[in-house]
Amino acid sequence: MTSTSGRTRMSPEGRREQLLELGTQLLSTRTLDEISIEVLAEEAGISRGLLYHYFGNKQDFHVAVVRRAVEQLVAITAPRDIEDPLEQLAVSLGAYVDYVVENYTGYVSLVRAASGGNDELRTIYEAGRRALVDRIFEVTGSDGMDALGVPDSPAVRLLADGWSAMTEAVVVAWVADDHGLSREDLLQRLAGALPAIALA
Amino acid sequence: MTSTSGRTRMSPEGRREQLLELGTQLLSTRTLDEISIEVLAEEAGISRGLLYHYFGNKQDFHVAVVRRAVEQLVAITAPRDIEDPLEQLAVSLGAYVDYVVENYTGYVSLVRAASGGNDELRTIYEAGRRALVDRIFEVTGSDGMDALGVPDSPAVRLLADGWSAMTEAVVVAWVADDHGLSREDLLQRLAGALPAIALA
Repeated sequence: MTSTSGRTRMSPEGRREQLLELGTQLLSTRTLDEISIEVLAEEAGISRGLLYHYFGNKQDFHVAVVRRAVEQLVAITAPRDIEDPLEQLAVSLGAYVDYVVENYTGYVSLVRAASGGNDELRTIYEAGRRALVDRIFEVTGSDGMDALGVPDSPAVRLLADGWSAMTEAVVVAWVADDHGLSREDLLQRLAGALPAIALA
Repeated sequence: MTSTSGRTRMSPEGRREQLLELGTQLLSTRTLDEISIEVLAEEAGISRGLLYHYFGNKQDFHVAVVRRAVEQLVAITAPRDIEDPLEQLAVSLGAYVDYVVENYTGYVSLVRAASGGNDELRTIYEAGRRALVDRIFEVTGSDGMDALGVPDSPAVRLLADGWSAMTEAVVVAWVADDHGLSREDLLQRLAGALPAIALA
């Protein structure tokens, strides 16, 4: 018998990827704690046994989901072909803000799990934040200077990490209550704050 | 029989205060999780039963310790009689930095517990942070303007909360590794960042 459904046979890796994608989507309306292998099994319509085969235990599953979510964040905030570095930063921040708006419940729970006592989740999350901050220092302007006119040094990196923590706190609070600040103003303020902090 | 030890009979409230003070001191070298009623009983040399009488269960005890630690933070960073508001802010930040240096292990664990899943600890900690940020807007310069020349608005308060999150992240990271930044430079950078962020 030949399949006529149009479905192709998927490799175990491909299948795991697809399930992980679904697991990460569940974060849009559920906290990390509310996402279990049982919930994923129900949503995907496949057996729990198979999912335990793919993801091990709940902690391993959460690690895989958080790693995927962080990869998504790094991907969606990737630099576009924008000449002005401050405008580029604002566009990347805009993609981040949109992600938090769309995944508010899950994102807040992920940040709390990563900031709290879960060492493995914190390590993954902090590596993601570091990748985002490192990216700022990789971009060089057409004059060969650091893109934002910010000199690269350990001290400036420390302050840029602080800017990253500020951005996370402000965006999460802004999504809950915009405090009369438009999306455009939010992005300009946060982008403008980075050179202001680094050069303060 | 008259006491000749010089000790005065202490009220239950006074005794509880004294024990709480000791419990908070334990944070200098221990994480919050490592501080239990059992540990306090051993340090204070009194029975666990009496301590359970004063503090209820472990969560209630931790709530009392965190509330006290936050009160201490608010108290030690209180404004002095310093004319220049930016200098005043740097002095308050200096007191905060010294506190984190002296209580590093416990403070980091407290921040993690407050940022993580413990709602009660988070509420207490965030109220403390809010008191510190509110204080910035209470101080008015001799010309009647906001002390730092920062206009007060919901949007600026949102950004000031972000500055507070940045300050916490930078100070905790700096205590672990100074990134070549002197204490004086750290304080000037963080103080200067507030008006820079608010006016960015």
